[in-house]
Amino acid sequence: MRKIDKVDLQLIKVLSQNSRLTYRELAEILGTTRQRIARRMEKLKKLGVIRKFTILPDFEKLGYMYAIVLIKLKPLIDVDDVINDIADIEYVKVIEKGIGKYNLLVHLLVPKDLHGAEEKVNEFLKRIKDIEEADVVFVSKISKFEII
Amino acid sequence: MRKIDKVDLQLIKVLSQNSRLTYRELAEILGTTRQRIARRMEKLKKLGVIRKFTILPDFEKLGYMYAIVLIKLKPLIDVDDVINDIADIEYVKVIEKGIGKYNLLVHLLVPKDLHGAEEKVNEFLKRIKDIEEADVVFVSKISKFEII
Repeated sequence: MRKIDKVDLQLIKVLSQNSRLTYRELAEILGTTRQRIARRMEKLKKLGVIRKFTILPDFEKLGYMYAIVLIKLKPLIDVDDVINDIADIEYVKVIEKGIGKYNLLVHLLVPKDLHGAEEKVNEFLKRIKDIEEADVVFVSKISKFEII
Repeated sequence: MRKIDKVDLQLIKVLSQNSRLTYRELAEILGTTRQRIARRMEKLKKLGVIRKFTILPDFEKLGYMYAIVLIKLKPLIDVDDVINDIADIEYVKVIEKGIGKYNLLVHLLVPKDLHGAEEKVNEFLKRIKDIEEADVVFVSKISKFEII
């Protein structure tokens, strides 16, 4: 029961489209029983395959947008140290370690007016030492969001 | 009833941490009634403030990772045309319009081995004409994921 099979993957895809479906509804969609769905859900949570049940809000309607800060740290700097330093900042919402042109990607939740947004980004950048290069992209629209 | 108030925002935050909570559980957390939660949920969905109830899987455990392609299109190219062209590609999971160094950010779901990943990214890049500049970052770890 430890391995992830095709039905697990289907279940994950269905949940990524609607994470509020009941076990009964999931069972109907996947052509199985409620008990089997319950068992699979337990497994997926236990194995950490499902990290979180969450939502995608319309940030603009809430007065916010994402600013994505793309950072390349100086050589020899430990990315995990920097991540620890910024993880608790309230407006820091997503932190991703990267391989490639940038090695740290940070999503900030900022006011949707560009002035307020820039202020917040500058405040954030001041808190990180050892930046070799940093670029910022303000997300003006999320056109597709499928997760998996 | 059309405006988003503080309780709505609280509700959204709670749901972003656990989108499977029942109306009864949400009512308990927010100190209100199930009926009032139901009414607020209807409103938030109707207004499009909640776009989707979804999950965050552990991509690595499923054999995948995200490749984020950062694109600056040539001047005068309509970003929306490009978005229409790529929106239906199965492995294209997130499409964001940006303001700043890049004007288009695309998350691809790719195999977690770098070889397979690069192949997929190259396949994708060939489908977009009118790129002025493109950079790629492979996400090796998602350290924080709070949404809002």
